[in-house]
Amino acid sequence: MTAAAPRPIVVAEEVLRARAYLLRVAEPSALHTGRLVDLLGPVAAADAIRRGDVPERVADETSARRGADRVDADLAAAADCGARLVVPEDPDWPQWPFACFGLTDKKELAPPLGLWVRGTGSLADLTDRAVAMVGARAASGYGTHTAAELGAGLAAAGQTVVSGAAIGIDGAAHRGALAGGGPTIAVLACGLDRAYPTSHAGLIDRVARQGLVVSEYPPGAVPARHRFLVRNRLIAALSVGTVVVEAALRSGAQRTASDARELGTVLMAVPGPVTSAASAGCHELIRQGALLVTRAEEITEATGRLGVELAREPERPQRRTDVLDETQARVHDALPPRAARDIAWLAVEAGLEQDTVRSALVELERRGLAEFHEGRWQRSVGGGG
Amino acid sequence: MTAAAPRPIVVAEEVLRARAYLLRVAEPSALHTGRLVDLLGPVAAADAIRRGDVPERVADETSARRGADRVDADLAAAADCGARLVVPEDPDWPQWPFACFGLTDKKELAPPLGLWVRGTGSLADLTDRAVAMVGARAASGYGTHTAAELGAGLAAAGQTVVSGAAIGIDGAAHRGALAGGGPTIAVLACGLDRAYPTSHAGLIDRVARQGLVVSEYPPGAVPARHRFLVRNRLIAALSVGTVVVEAALRSGAQRTASDARELGTVLMAVPGPVTSAASAGCHELIRQGALLVTRAEEITEATGRLGVELAREPERPQRRTDVLDETQARVHDALPPRAARDIAWLAVEAGLEQDTVRSALVELERRGLAEFHEGRWQRSVGGGG
Repeated sequence: MTAAAPRPIVVAEEVLRARAYLLRVAEPSALHTGRLVDLLGPVAAADAIRRGDVPERVADETSARRGADRVDADLAAAADCGARLVVPEDPDWPQWPFACFGLTDKKELAPPLGLWVRGTGSLADLTDRAVAMVGARAASGYGTHTAAELGAGLAAAGQTVVSGAAIGIDGAAHRGALAGGGPTIAVLACGLDRAYPTSHAGLIDRVARQGLVVSEYPPGAVPARHRFLVRNRLIAALSVGTVVVEAALRSGAQRTASDARELGTVLMAVPGPVTSAASAGCHELIRQGALLVTRAEEITEATGRLGVELAREPERPQRRTDVLDETQARVHDALPPRAARDIAWLAVEAGLEQDTVRSALVELERRGLAEFHEGRWQRSVGGGG
Repeated sequence: MTAAAPRPIVVAEEVLRARAYLLRVAEPSALHTGRLVDLLGPVAAADAIRRGDVPERVADETSARRGADRVDADLAAAADCGARLVVPEDPDWPQWPFACFGLTDKKELAPPLGLWVRGTGSLADLTDRAVAMVGARAASGYGTHTAAELGAGLAAAGQTVVSGAAIGIDGAAHRGALAGGGPTIAVLACGLDRAYPTSHAGLIDRVARQGLVVSEYPPGAVPARHRFLVRNRLIAALSVGTVVVEAALRSGAQRTASDARELGTVLMAVPGPVTSAASAGCHELIRQGALLVTRAEEITEATGRLGVELAREPERPQRRTDVLDETQARVHDALPPRAARDIAWLAVEAGLEQDTVRSALVELERRGLAEFHEGRWQRSVGGGG
C-alpha cells in the first residue's frame, strides 16, 4: 500500500552476508549451527563452516551445502521480490517473542538464523501480542467460517494474526484478518520468490501489502513436507498464543500445537461438533489442557496484556422473574397460568405460610406478574417466561 | 417386562408411614427437617411436626402443610401406579451415591427424605456407576443425536443413564439408553401418577419397564419451576458424573452442572459448534474446568472404576511413510513426485551427505517408496501420502 520508507542501515554488510550464507547452507532447524554462531558471531562462524573447520554436529548440519555460496544471488533474488533479510543483530528482530526458544533444548525447536521478510511493516512491532491461528487444510465450511470470524475479531482488537498461508484454516484466518483491517503475517515453508500454494499467490501478495510474509528459506527453496513441520515452530514462536481451529487427530496443526506448548506460549483450541473428524484434534487438545475458545475476545483475554483486556461476559437471556426473591419465585411458580386460586390453596402448593404468600402476591401484582380476580389469584398473561 | 418379585418387608410400617408423611409436608429441599429426622428418627420427627412442636427453622419448612395427613391416600395412589416408597432405612436406598450430600451444607442441596420409585429394578444397584445426562429442552438435531449416541454407548458399557425425562436432550438420552439395551432412570419433578411432559408419557412408561422412574414428590404433586431446579440435584446426586450435552448460557442444565460440582461428582460437557447458542453453556462449563467428552468411552473412563475402564485411543490415520526414520523421511520429501533427480541434487535438497542419501534411497526402494530410473531417483506413484 504505502511505499517502503528507506530503512536505515543498522546491520554491518558482512553480518548480513554471513547470515544469508548460513540460511542457505544450514537446513532448519539447525541447533548446533546456531550455537556456533552464538559462540563465534555470524561472520567467524560462516568462515569456519566454509572451511569445514567445525565440530562434527555442526558439520552434520552444514557439510552437504557448505560449498553453495550464493549470497549475492540470494540477496538479489530477495530484492527482486521485495524482500529483505532481518537478522538478530537488527533492532527489528522479534527478540522478545523468540525468547521462548530459550525454554527448550529440542533440536527441532532451534531459533532461526535470520528471516527473509517481505512487506513494509516492522517485524518486531507486528509480533507484539500476535496470535497464531492454524488448522486443517481439509477444513469444513464451519471451520473456515470460524477462522475468518476470529481473524477479523483479532484484527479489530489490534492483534496480528500469524499463520501459514495454506489452503483451509490458514487462508481463512489471513483473509479474516485482512477483512478486519488488521495486519497479518504469513510464514512460508519455501523461498519468498515462490507462492505456495499457487492458488494463494494473490492472497500472499495482499498479506505482503497489509502485513508481512516471512521465511527462513532462501529464495528458490521449494516446499517439502519436513519444511512445513519445521516452519510451524516459527508460527508458534512469533505469537503469544496459538489457536487451533480445526485439526484431525494427526495433523500438522497438532504439531504446531505441541511446539506452542513446548515453547511455553498459550495453547487454545476451538471446539466443534463431536461428529466432525475435522474437530477431533481440537477436542483432544482441550482434553489435554488447551484452553477452549469460542470468540475473539476470549483469545484476546488469554493473550492480551494482563488485566488490560478481559472478555466481556457473554449476554445472557433476561426474564422478568429474574428479580424475584426465592419466596416470590416460589409463589409465582405455584400460580396456575390459566386457573385462579385462593391463598390457602397457593400456600399448600408453594409450601409456605399464608401470610408469606399474601405479601409475595402483593409484590408480584406490583410487578405485573400476578392478577387478582374475585378473591382469587392467577398468573398474568405474558408475565411468566 | 418381568413381574415384580414380592419384595421382603424390611422397613417397619411406621417408618414407611412417617417418611410418606414427611415427603408430603416438607417441600424439598428440606434441610432442617432432614436434620430433625436424623436426630429423632423419622417416627418421632413426624410426630413432633404434626404437633407443631419443632424448632422454628423446621416449622418454616413444614407448618404450611403439617395438617395435610394423606399417608393412606398417598400410599394407595402410589400402589395404583406401580410405585413403592424407598426410604433411607431400606437396603435399596442409594446410600453410597447419596454420601455426596455430606460434602455440602447448602440448604438447596439437602438429601431427599425418601423416594417414590416406579419399576422393578433395585435403586441401589442401578445407581452404581450411573451417569447423569442433561441438557437443553430446545436442543438441536446435533444435540439429540449426540445424546442418543452417548446414551446407547453408556448402556452398552453397563452404565445406567439418569436424566429428567424432559423434551430435548433428556428424552434423547433415555431413548438412547433404552435402544442400547440398558436400564435408565428418570427423575421427575412431579408425582409418579403424572407424566410430565405429557408427550413423554409413553417414554416414561418404557423407562419404568426397563429401568426406574423416581420422584421425591408425593402422588398428585404438580411440576413447578422451582421443583425442576430442586429435582436436578437428585439427578446429579444419583450419578458418579454428570454430562451436559447442550445448554444455553443460562439454563436448568447449568444448574444441574453446578449441583454436580458442589456435590463433588465428575462434571463433563459435550462441545459443539461455537456458532450454536445451544452449545454456549457447554463451552462455558469446559472453560471453567468441566471435562470435555466426545465419546461414551471417555465418559466411562472418567466415571468407571479406577484403572478398570480406560478409553481406547481413537484411531489415527496411518501412512506408509510413518515407519521411516527422520533421514529417510527427509530424503523421501526431497524426491520429486514427477521428475527424477540424481543423488547430488537430492543431497542438496535434503540438506544431507550423498552417502546418507544413497543408503536412505535403498531403504525407500525396498519399501516401494522410491524408484530408480537410468541413474536418477523419483518418488513411487502411490507411495507418498
